[in-house]
Amino acid sequence: MAVNLALPIVANLKPVAGIELGFAEAGIRKPNRKDLLVMKLASTATVAGVFTTNRFCAAPVQVCQAHLQGVHLGASSIRALLINTGNANAGTGEVGLSDANETCVALADLLDCEPAQILPFSTGVILEPLPVDRIKAGLPKALSNLNTDNWMNAAEAIMTTDTQPKADSRTVIIDGKTVTLTGISKGAGMIRPNMATMLGFIATDAAVAQPVLEHLVKFAADKSFNCITIDGDTSTNDSFMLIATGVGEVDIAEIDCEAYEALAAAVIDLSKSLAQMIVRDGEGATKFMTITVEDGASVEECRKVAYSIGHSPLVKTAFFASDPNLGRILAAIGYAGVDDLDVNKLDLYLDDVWVAKNGGRHPEYEEQDGQRVMKQSEITVRVNLARGNATATIWTCDLSQEYVAINADYRS
Amino acid sequence: MAVNLALPIVANLKPVAGIELGFAEAGIRKPNRKDLLVMKLASTATVAGVFTTNRFCAAPVQVCQAHLQGVHLGASSIRALLINTGNANAGTGEVGLSDANETCVALADLLDCEPAQILPFSTGVILEPLPVDRIKAGLPKALSNLNTDNWMNAAEAIMTTDTQPKADSRTVIIDGKTVTLTGISKGAGMIRPNMATMLGFIATDAAVAQPVLEHLVKFAADKSFNCITIDGDTSTNDSFMLIATGVGEVDIAEIDCEAYEALAAAVIDLSKSLAQMIVRDGEGATKFMTITVEDGASVEECRKVAYSIGHSPLVKTAFFASDPNLGRILAAIGYAGVDDLDVNKLDLYLDDVWVAKNGGRHPEYEEQDGQRVMKQSEITVRVNLARGNATATIWTCDLSQEYVAINADYRS
Repeated sequence: MAVNLALPIVANLKPVAGIELGFAEAGIRKPNRKDLLVMKLASTATVAGVFTTNRFCAAPVQVCQAHLQGVHLGASSIRALLINTGNANAGTGEVGLSDANETCVALADLLDCEPAQILPFSTGVILEPLPVDRIKAGLPKALSNLNTDNWMNAAEAIMTTDTQPKADSRTVIIDGKTVTLTGISKGAGMIRPNMATMLGFIATDAAVAQPVLEHLVKFAADKSFNCITIDGDTSTNDSFMLIATGVGEVDIAEIDCEAYEALAAAVIDLSKSLAQMIVRDGEGATKFMTITVEDGASVEECRKVAYSIGHSPLVKTAFFASDPNLGRILAAIGYAGVDDLDVNKLDLYLDDVWVAKNGGRHPEYEEQDGQRVMKQSEITVRVNLARGNATATIWTCDLSQEYVAINADYRS
Repeated sequence: MAVNLALPIVANLKPVAGIELGFAEAGIRKPNRKDLLVMKLASTATVAGVFTTNRFCAAPVQVCQAHLQGVHLGASSIRALLINTGNANAGTGEVGLSDANETCVALADLLDCEPAQILPFSTGVILEPLPVDRIKAGLPKALSNLNTDNWMNAAEAIMTTDTQPKADSRTVIIDGKTVTLTGISKGAGMIRPNMATMLGFIATDAAVAQPVLEHLVKFAADKSFNCITIDGDTSTNDSFMLIATGVGEVDIAEIDCEAYEALAAAVIDLSKSLAQMIVRDGEGATKFMTITVEDGASVEECRKVAYSIGHSPLVKTAFFASDPNLGRILAAIGYAGVDDLDVNKLDLYLDDVWVAKNGGRHPEYEEQDGQRVMKQSEITVRVNLARGNATATIWTCDLSQEYVAINADYRS
C-alpha cells in the first residue's frame, strides 16, 4: 500500500565510478532471497556515516563506528561495506561484537585488506545470534558478481518488510564536470516481525576530503533521514552512509566553496528522496504527510512540535480515516513539551485551509474544507507558533489497521 | 474488550456524607444519555486537584485552576462540581472561557453561591463551541435528583467511549473511626472520535485541611493516574480531584501524623484502582501490562524507560499478538533517552522468565517460556538497570487493530 511510490527504473540508476556492488542469496533467515550485499570501493574512497542514537545499538554499528574512528585518526581507508538482512546482530552482547568482527575478517581476507577497512551492517531479528557461517559462505558468490551496474540488485538485497526497492540517482555539474550520485535505502522503524532498521547508502564519484564528508553526512542526515518518522521507534541499527569514491574529476577539499555547496545540495536532494521513499512505503501507510512548524523560537522546538504531531496515534488514525478531527492536532501541539508556548497566538493550516486562528477554530473554517484536504493522499499540516523565525519540516505517514496487522503477525 | 474489568456493584459503592450527586440527560451531543453531573458539597468541604500539563488545556481546566487558586488564597470554599460530556470546550479560545464561566454562574444562581465556588469540567469534542444553553437547561433536572447514593449514575454520566462505568469505594479506620472514600473515573487518552479526557474524582468524609489536601492530591496522582498510559496522547482536559467533605468524624490538619498516613494510603489505593480501570478499558485493549523499572539512578529515568516501553507501538502490537518478540523491548529501552545507560548491565524479565542478562539473551531463555507468559491477559515486564536504587512502575495496555478501528471511525 505504498503512497505514490514509483518503482525505481534500472535505466535511471546511474553507475558511480569507483564502487562495485555484489550480492548473494546466503539463506541467512529464509532461502531464495537476496540477503547479502558487498559494496567494494576504490582505494581513493572516503566514507562517513551517522548512526542510531539507541543505547542498544547493534554490534555492527559499534564496529562501524570504531573503524570510521580509525579512519578519522589516519588509519587506512575503507575498502568495502558488507550488509546482511535477516538478522540485526543486536541485543547480542560480546558474542555479537565478535561475530561482526569475524565477518569483517572473512571479507578482508577475500579482498586482501585489513578487517578495519570493512564496515559491517545488519538488519533483521533482534536478540538472536548472527549466522556467521552462512554470511561467510555467501561472500564468494557476492564477490563473483561485483559490478557498477548492480544498484537495483543492491536495493533489493537490503529489503526486509519493504514492499519495493528504494533507489535513486542525481547528477550535478560542478566546475563544468558531471558528478554522479546514486543511493539506496530500506524501511524505517516499525518493521515487520522484529525487523527493525533504516539503512541509507549514497555514493558519489567526486573526491571529498574526509573531514568535509563527515560534515556533509551529518548535515544531509539532519535534512532528510532525521526528518522522517513512522512510529517513533528508533531502531538499534539505523545507519546512513556517504561514500565519495574519488574516481571522478571533481575534488572537494573544503566546505567554504561553491563546489561544496553544489555537491551538498545534490546529496541533500537525493537523501530527501530516499528518506521520503521509506515513509511512502511505511507499514500499512495510506497517506504521506508533511508537517511544517514555522515561526518558532528555535529549530529544536519546531521539531518537538512537529514530531509530537507526527507521533500521535490519535492524529495518525484520524488521517487514516480522512477525518478532519483537527482538535487532535492542537492537543498534540499542546503536549509537545514547549513549556512557555502561548497557544493563543497559534495558527493551524491544512494545505491551503486555515483551520485554527489564535488558538481557536477559525471563524470561517468549515468542516467540508478540512474534509476535502483530508481525502488527499498527500497532505501538508502547517503550524505557526508566532514566537520566532525558526522552521522545521518532517515527513510521516498515517496509522492503519494494516500497520497493526503487520506488526502483530507472528515472526515467520 | 475490557481486560479483567468487573462492573462496579451499586451495593459496594458507599455514600460519602457531605456530597450529593445529581445527573441529567441534557442532550449535549446525543439524546437519551446521561451527560451532565452535579456534585454538591457540604459547606465544610475542601477540594484540591491536579490538571493536564497540555498547553492547549481546555477552558474549564483554566477556570478550575483559577477558582482553586482563589480558595488557596482564602476565598470561599468550593460548593459544587459541574461535569459535562459531549464537548471538551478545548481549542475554543476566549469564547470557551466565557462559556465555562457562564455555566458556573448558572449553577451558582441555582445553589445560591458565588460562581467562583463552582468547578467546571468538560469532556468530548475539541474545537467546537460548548452548547451552554443545553447545559443550563439540564441543571434543574440534575439538582432535582441530588442524592448521596448516586455514585453509579455519576460514573455513567461521565462516560464517553468507556465501555463500562468505573467506580470503587474504600473504608479505613482512623483513630477508631470509620472514614469512607468513594471515587469515579473515565477513560484516558485515546478516546473515540475526538473525545479526549481522563477524569477522576474521589470524595471522602474526612475533614482535611486545604494545604494537606493539595499535597495529597499531587502525591496520589503521581502514584496512580500519572502512572498510566494508553497511547501517550496527553489530553487537553485531564483532571483528578480530591474532595474532603469534612462531615465525618476524622479531622486531619497536618501531614506529619499517622492519621494522614492512613488516609493517604487509602486514597492512593483507591486512585490506583480507578486509574487501572481506565487502562483495563483502554480502547481495543486485550492485555493489561505492568511495567516495572528497578535499580535506576533516579525515579525520573526509571519512568522514562518504563514509558518508552509502554508507548512503543512495536512493543504494544507484539503484546497484542502474544508474540515474545522481546528485542523490541530492548530497543525501546535503548531509545528512552538515558544517555549514559550501560546496556551491558541490563536484565529483562517477563513475569518470572529471565529473558535478557547483561544486555543479551539469557543463555537459558527459551522462546516457549516467553510464549507462555505472552499468552496471559496480565503480564509484568521488569527491567533492572543495575545503576542505582530507584524504581518506577506504570500500567498500560496493548495496541490492537480494534484500537485503530475505534479511533479511525468518523465522528458520529
